[in-house]
Amino acid sequence: MATSADAGPIRILITGGTFDKEYDELTGRLFFQESHLPEMLKLGRCGLPLQVRTLMMIDSLDMSDADRRLVVEQCRSAAEHRIVITHGTDTMTETAQMLAGEIQDKTIVLTGAMVPYKFGSSDGLFNLGSALAFAQTLPPGVYVAMNGRFFAAGKVRKNRQTGMFEEQG
Amino acid sequence: MATSADAGPIRILITGGTFDKEYDELTGRLFFQESHLPEMLKLGRCGLPLQVRTLMMIDSLDMSDADRRLVVEQCRSAAEHRIVITHGTDTMTETAQMLAGEIQDKTIVLTGAMVPYKFGSSDGLFNLGSALAFAQTLPPGVYVAMNGRFFAAGKVRKNRQTGMFEEQG
Amino acid sequence: MATSADAGPIRILITGGTFDKEYDELTGRLFFQESHLPEMLKLGRCGLPLQVRTLMMIDSLDMSDADRRLVVEQCRSAAEHRIVITHGTDTMTETAQMLAGEIQDKTIVLTGAMVPYKFGSSDGLFNLGSALAFAQTLPPGVYVAMNGRFFAAGKVRKNRQTGMFEEQG
Amino acid sequence: MATSADAGPIRILITGGTFDKEYDELTGRLFFQESHLPEMLKLGRCGLPLQVRTLMMIDSLDMSDADRRLVVEQCRSAAEHRIVITHGTDTMTETAQMLAGEIQDKTIVLTGAMVPYKFGSSDGLFNLGSALAFAQTLPPGVYVAMNGRFFAAGKVRKNRQTGMFEEQG
Repeated sequence: MATSADAGPIRILITGGTFDKEYDELTGRLFFQESHLPEMLKLGRCGLPLQVRTLMMIDSLDMSDADRRLVVEQCRSAAEHRIVITHGTDTMTETAQMLAGEIQDKTIVLTGAMVPYKFGSSDGLFNLGSALAFAQTLPPGVYVAMNGRFFAAGKVRKNRQTGMFEEQG
Repeated sequence: MATSADAGPIRILITGGTFDKEYDELTGRLFFQESHLPEMLKLGRCGLPLQVRTLMMIDSLDMSDADRRLVVEQCRSAAEHRIVITHGTDTMTETAQMLAGEIQDKTIVLTGAMVPYKFGSSDGLFNLGSALAFAQTLPPGVYVAMNGRFFAAGKVRKNRQTGMFEEQG
Repeated sequence: MATSADAGPIRILITGGTFDKEYDELTGRLFFQESHLPEMLKLGRCGLPLQVRTLMMIDSLDMSDADRRLVVEQCRSAAEHRIVITHGTDTMTETAQMLAGEIQDKTIVLTGAMVPYKFGSSDGLFNLGSALAFAQTLPPGVYVAMNGRFFAAGKVRKNRQTGMFEEQG
Repeated sequence: MATSADAGPIRILITGGTFDKEYDELTGRLFFQESHLPEMLKLGRCGLPLQVRTLMMIDSLDMSDADRRLVVEQCRSAAEHRIVITHGTDTMTETAQMLAGEIQDKTIVLTGAMVPYKFGSSDGLFNLGSALAFAQTLPPGVYVAMNGRFFAAGKVRKNRQTGMFEEQG
């Protein structure tokens, strides 16, 4: 490929996660409202042909088997061969592993954020930029994109002490 | 490659550009001080093995032939096979083309920003995330990474009406 | 008074509140670390002679009678005649009322924020600017400064539906 | 006064200044578009009764005598007795002095910013909060509100080395 155009359109599936958490000023709690993805893509002056769809808006600790099956189904039925999934970091590696067992012919990249986008200090925009780039260039397979890096599904874990993703067995 | 670790370390060469412009509150003008790259990499919780080096801190409209030869020389002599160059957007495509004529065995990705990082609405973090991802995954060659996309050197221009990068002949 | 200099130095007492909440990226919870007051004063290029002291770093819903007595004691013993207290909004009016019953010879202004300072969309800097101004210009008494307005202690309530402070009784 | 409500409504007159400068991503220059005042008032959850009017959108170095006469005229004819003027910092003290010679029966507060509001590090929100507070509490007269402080017109200068406002003769 000499240009992104050869990679074809990308589908973005939104599932929620820290990425999209808001601060509720009346209760002082974090909650989900609408996704910030469109705003982030605009900020990034993103010029890729994208199809964005919100599947759910949940904390990934609350993601059920049925929720994961929905994600798998949506990846399978998507017309696009390249998919980015925004996802909470706590169970991102589990969803990646389930997807890898079910879908082999598409490039699927899961990403998220350690800090909500609406917080000034969020890693969300950096991660989104890298995930979209990995989705255009990696061969079919399921990957996690965090910390500027990519990891094949099944070979990555979140280090809960450091908050960083790392290779594993 | 199943993980970023297989891609090896990346060198980042800083040349300035809008990325790194600051607001001088005494004169009301934009100027260069130190690069924001380290701060941006920290914000992105970047976990890649990186070597960062500042070559110059200039507006790319002020980049001379001697400056460009320095960039080429630094790319050639770098031990790393993957290089990201931060660069002003106005002449980014020129520098890319000169690099492509000189270096064929490394993956070199130029990126920048339309809005200074210190402005809340900057695309810099998004572009940096994508450039680092492209540097890990694209085959040897020289590329421009802007707007979430990549373009081979010599096949890209900046549209000065829209501020977007696009394919050309 | 023709200038702030005539108002004399101001003491700032920090008690925590939403103002100073941080996002813990490992647990996804909001917590207190250090106060952002010094950073906010620097951002505001504040040129006032100030004495800043942290008394506690708590949610105002957790403020005990002993905590409030400490605040009263600190206001009483302060050498300064003008005092600003940063405080959680939930019980700000209660602390104001207790202070008003105990101290009559100083100008005391309580302020806070609906959204943490570290969130991009915080009202904290606006409120801090107004509280410091009210502290310089209002006669002795205890006041709440929120929403760009001031209210005498005992004549204000937080409307929990709107999050705005308003006159009462 | 026991509450802001007794101070009556405030008129805000916008003249431009650093406050309202934007970054033009196509030319790399700072320019004026629309005022950010409404956005700033919303961020501050401002609950004051306000009348906002844009008189001009210029750098205060470009402010002519005719421009200043317009500002004086607008202050004179305003129904409100309390007025805040947003103004570039370079000639803020000059406009204040002209106003002081013409209008004695209203409280007029000029404020501005050293860094554009759209830059993350702006002092604008802090200054706006303090200016609105000073406008509610100071007796009739013309004042400059910067650095958390107020100064009577004619007794203040901008220190061009430090960017801070200070008393003078």
